[in-house]
Amino acid sequence: MLIVMDKDATPAQIEAVAAKVVALGFEAQPIPGGERVAIAILRNPGPVDPAVFVDMAGVIQAIPVSRPYKLVSREIKREDTIIKLPGLEVGRGRFVVMAGPCAVESETQALTIAERVKAAGAKVFRGGAYKPRTSPYSYQGLGKKGLAILRKVREETGLLIVTEAMDQDSLKLVAESADIIQLGARNMQNFSLLRCAGRTGKPILLKRGMYATLEEWLMAAEYIMSEGDPQVILCERGVRAIGEHARNLLDLATIPAVRRESHLPIVVDPSHAAGRRDLVQPLARAAVAAGCDGLLIEVHHEPEKALSDGAQSLYPEQFEALMQDLAGLRPGGWY
Amino acid sequence: MLIVMDKDATPAQIEAVAAKVVALGFEAQPIPGGERVAIAILRNPGPVDPAVFVDMAGVIQAIPVSRPYKLVSREIKREDTIIKLPGLEVGRGRFVVMAGPCAVESETQALTIAERVKAAGAKVFRGGAYKPRTSPYSYQGLGKKGLAILRKVREETGLLIVTEAMDQDSLKLVAESADIIQLGARNMQNFSLLRCAGRTGKPILLKRGMYATLEEWLMAAEYIMSEGDPQVILCERGVRAIGEHARNLLDLATIPAVRRESHLPIVVDPSHAAGRRDLVQPLARAAVAAGCDGLLIEVHHEPEKALSDGAQSLYPEQFEALMQDLAGLRPGGWY
Amino acid sequence: MLIVMDKDATPAQIEAVAAKVVALGFEAQPIPGGERVAIAILRNPGPVDPAVFVDMAGVIQAIPVSRPYKLVSREIKREDTIIKLPGLEVGRGRFVVMAGPCAVESETQALTIAERVKAAGAKVFRGGAYKPRTSPYSYQGLGKKGLAILRKVREETGLLIVTEAMDQDSLKLVAESADIIQLGARNMQNFSLLRCAGRTGKPILLKRGMYATLEEWLMAAEYIMSEGDPQVILCERGVRAIGEHARNLLDLATIPAVRRESHLPIVVDPSHAAGRRDLVQPLARAAVAAGCDGLLIEVHHEPEKALSDGAQSLYPEQFEALMQDLAGLRPGGWY
Amino acid sequence: MLIVMDKDATPAQIEAVAAKVVALGFEAQPIPGGERVAIAILRNPGPVDPAVFVDMAGVIQAIPVSRPYKLVSREIKREDTIIKLPGLEVGRGRFVVMAGPCAVESETQALTIAERVKAAGAKVFRGGAYKPRTSPYSYQGLGKKGLAILRKVREETGLLIVTEAMDQDSLKLVAESADIIQLGARNMQNFSLLRCAGRTGKPILLKRGMYATLEEWLMAAEYIMSEGDPQVILCERGVRAIGEHARNLLDLATIPAVRRESHLPIVVDPSHAAGRRDLVQPLARAAVAAGCDGLLIEVHHEPEKALSDGAQSLYPEQFEALMQDLAGLRPGGWY
Repeated sequence: MLIVMDKDATPAQIEAVAAKVVALGFEAQPIPGGERVAIAILRNPGPVDPAVFVDMAGVIQAIPVSRPYKLVSREIKREDTIIKLPGLEVGRGRFVVMAGPCAVESETQALTIAERVKAAGAKVFRGGAYKPRTSPYSYQGLGKKGLAILRKVREETGLLIVTEAMDQDSLKLVAESADIIQLGARNMQNFSLLRCAGRTGKPILLKRGMYATLEEWLMAAEYIMSEGDPQVILCERGVRAIGEHARNLLDLATIPAVRRESHLPIVVDPSHAAGRRDLVQPLARAAVAAGCDGLLIEVHHEPEKALSDGAQSLYPEQFEALMQDLAGLRPGGWY
Repeated sequence: MLIVMDKDATPAQIEAVAAKVVALGFEAQPIPGGERVAIAILRNPGPVDPAVFVDMAGVIQAIPVSRPYKLVSREIKREDTIIKLPGLEVGRGRFVVMAGPCAVESETQALTIAERVKAAGAKVFRGGAYKPRTSPYSYQGLGKKGLAILRKVREETGLLIVTEAMDQDSLKLVAESADIIQLGARNMQNFSLLRCAGRTGKPILLKRGMYATLEEWLMAAEYIMSEGDPQVILCERGVRAIGEHARNLLDLATIPAVRRESHLPIVVDPSHAAGRRDLVQPLARAAVAAGCDGLLIEVHHEPEKALSDGAQSLYPEQFEALMQDLAGLRPGGWY
Repeated sequence: MLIVMDKDATPAQIEAVAAKVVALGFEAQPIPGGERVAIAILRNPGPVDPAVFVDMAGVIQAIPVSRPYKLVSREIKREDTIIKLPGLEVGRGRFVVMAGPCAVESETQALTIAERVKAAGAKVFRGGAYKPRTSPYSYQGLGKKGLAILRKVREETGLLIVTEAMDQDSLKLVAESADIIQLGARNMQNFSLLRCAGRTGKPILLKRGMYATLEEWLMAAEYIMSEGDPQVILCERGVRAIGEHARNLLDLATIPAVRRESHLPIVVDPSHAAGRRDLVQPLARAAVAAGCDGLLIEVHHEPEKALSDGAQSLYPEQFEALMQDLAGLRPGGWY
Repeated sequence: MLIVMDKDATPAQIEAVAAKVVALGFEAQPIPGGERVAIAILRNPGPVDPAVFVDMAGVIQAIPVSRPYKLVSREIKREDTIIKLPGLEVGRGRFVVMAGPCAVESETQALTIAERVKAAGAKVFRGGAYKPRTSPYSYQGLGKKGLAILRKVREETGLLIVTEAMDQDSLKLVAESADIIQLGARNMQNFSLLRCAGRTGKPILLKRGMYATLEEWLMAAEYIMSEGDPQVILCERGVRAIGEHARNLLDLATIPAVRRESHLPIVVDPSHAAGRRDLVQPLARAAVAAGCDGLLIEVHHEPEKALSDGAQSLYPEQFEALMQDLAGLRPGGWY
């Protein structure tokens, strides 16, 4: 924390700020500048709340300096985290595609799509059994029956399963059935759920919140890791923006920024960013070119009958074409 | 839903769209315009997903027309909802101030502040026993012990209690202790929690999400009401914005907009919007002048020692001055 | 500027940063913290570009400390600026209402409205002769003829005139006719126009840009003042936001924030923030309650025939009612 | 325009709306739905202002249907626009790199960089002679002397020149010296400048505004085209967003969206989106993979001495590496 004083701050005001720093148990170091004095807070074990200083007489600004995250930080752990699943590694230098429908609707639907995405090269099957929906009157998912179908898909195809847990009840059930537990954008700051997820011992795919900063997103991962689970996969899915040409604004600068700040893997969901089928391919290409560690893609063989998100689901043939297209983008050497 | 066709859409393309509408069980009415044709969807019982149409050949746009909310809507219930609590009514034409510390820290702290805010005219005591914090290392609240202190405050002062539930476990406990259950901004789309809250039968104070549209906020209230609880109080607390002069951007246009769209009461939390003490008074004044049904204000007798949000808490004397100031703003006739 | 080093930064990396600071002509003061070293830049006459340091080895962040503005800053000039016009002062403790149509459409229209707003208490007549419009096919204003009508309004009613200049050509003409020159939101960073405006010697009403930070807005005022014109009136008119319940999101926290950072007066335009007539009154009330120095209100006697912005224009009777209502909000003692 | 009526709208209210539509010179077609009536406006030659209807009794919403743009629209011109310059075509299926320093600082600087970017494959040299800067105290460019240097660069290297015009004075001079005239983000809605640019007969590179919607951006291009200049190149450079991991949020979904809505070429400026050197390469890769028609890249041989934007400028060796890297991304067949 650096506390910046007014040009005309009196010695008494500067002294009062220093005294407050000491009262909080830290050390205060005044830095006399050309025009004004600033006071650095030293020996603080973690971030200090700027709010404590911001309306003291003579203070014009309090600037946080410390990074609030620890376990997720590349400063703490320099090497990239690689998450090991049966027959699959997720992390830098690997590349994984997770594909499937938005929602599991029936065994036939799930198996049909699973066979297609597996044949095209996906290693993980995605599909929701519990669906967070903006309206209480929209389709809410098959629940336990959906999880049973997902287990069947794994048995029959060998694909690993990623599916969303919406709350603590579903988390318990999902943890028993899934290989990777997904936490959705709307739950990114559901701190109780983050903690519980961190106690499952399972890999967690953590979607970025609708309008979360990189710091908030990493702090959400910190919640999971602070419960002892180091296997977090970050998933960029776009943030809300003005404009109606796409549903969300895919923020690909998070890929290199996460690399710099953290050791965790980062995958991208172009389907939710796009919101419409014709934008999925260009955004998926862009994400791969920007260096992500994997993609989450919605695929449906009958999207016009899908119970949710049909308009952004690729047809299986489109998914196959996309996979071939992407192969050309990853010559192997560039990450 | 109105589906707008390309200027050069062929009769076959227009026919295909109409056929799809019929296949979904609705009625299609083509509207030939000067330049292009649009197709209205009729007889749909609820909103239709635009996504189904948006990439059909010849379609350039699909525009939702229906409002997705029902129970919260003023179209369904014309008269304002008035929520009845012991000795207090919340709703239009009434005006209530809820005040207290961000977090309950001790019995002495809570009682000290409660006496002061009661004397100044507050009718409800606010104070968190469960605190959602961005960092897992920040103060998380006293939990059950905090709830016991809140019950003590009610006993001793007669103030009603509003406090936050963070998850289903704390909701159960909060419902037993509080008069009004608060759901926080980060949980506005925690749909499981909304449903559970709707089953408590208690009044629910629902904060607007960090970057929620009015429609999403009303849909969150719809979740609560769809479980049978009609007692929802909306709470505007600002949305995230660029710029650092305040923590959040207080959106006072929601007050008249909520009045127009819904029958539910709306209160305002200027403390969280401000993020710093010196902005609370002007924003509180503005909210009252704009016609809100109440305020939520953070007050602390020793904010510099507060375990959270100290910098935005008013001193009791400031709160007293604010209450007197506000009295001058509500001559009584203007809502 | 404070440069924050990585926890594992080497002495050589720290030395390199310090050397770069010195090479730029400043002084470097290392501040050893508990976990990491930070380096303060001293003796810099103005802001330093963080970008110079941000990708040096071992640097994790470069934090600006200096305020970039000078002439607009309350640190430079402690007392509030009061702008003196014939028969009118604009600034703190005064309160001025500027009202009139969005665009000047005819002499009859302008005079009719001017008489009404004058009778209701407005001191300045607003009306555009040059209209910046999103579409080249929308009504663009009467130009010189409009300015002649505005001069006539002043002659006949004694009201002062505020009207917008869109570019250097219109600025010259507007400067000859208007008492206050308005610069619009879309031109807030038209730096050439700002400079020219600063050379007219006229009071300038500077609207906040569509999505400008407080700092950028004050820097735009700095451009005007740096040309020798101290008479700048800031005008808050809302920033762009998601959500469709209002056209823009009126940011009333700028009122106390501008007071803190600057000595310049600040007025509010609730009409453009609202975008629809029924929101103007609550937002105008809120702005006054928050302590602004004046209002800009659109009024039209036949808004349904207005050539622009009719839907947000008040009827003269509504404006009269608003003026009476506002009188009750300003008991006189609160700013 | 579709006007949606309240469920309880009376026949008289519906009639009044229809009458208003007719009074405006259009045709009104009521569409009776299951729950409510909507009224379509037909035979309107262009967009109708929703504001006219929005506060009529019984109206709950007015939804624009028409596209406001004409000349830029793919509905008007189906084939892609290809802009022909000496020895270079810009448009779909072609790919052009424009590179150079943010600002022209000296002949030596410009020629040194020009030789390097030419050798690496750039076809156009970029460099500002007139610099719009947030602060009046920042470096503002060499002006006419800078233009002379740019002409020298063209002579010596054969590279074409793109450089920014800030206002009508500089536009005139820039038009005489440059092959492509750049209009900056802050001037995207400087409508006078857009019109003047459209009269130069030169190709115009139009940057997207700081927070402009796709529609506003296309309308700005419409201003240029409406003056008779069909040679507009759109340039995506990111929009403002919360979060500090990058300067702006690069919105690559505009690439396919512009393709759908317009026939104009679209290039991407990853340097301004990034704001820091280490993000430029991943964002440039992403833009190419998403299908843009070209890139604008900042390159400086001594970025640490650059007078502006040094931190986002690539070293020439980095630019060379990037160009080779990009070659691998464009196998030729994918747009």
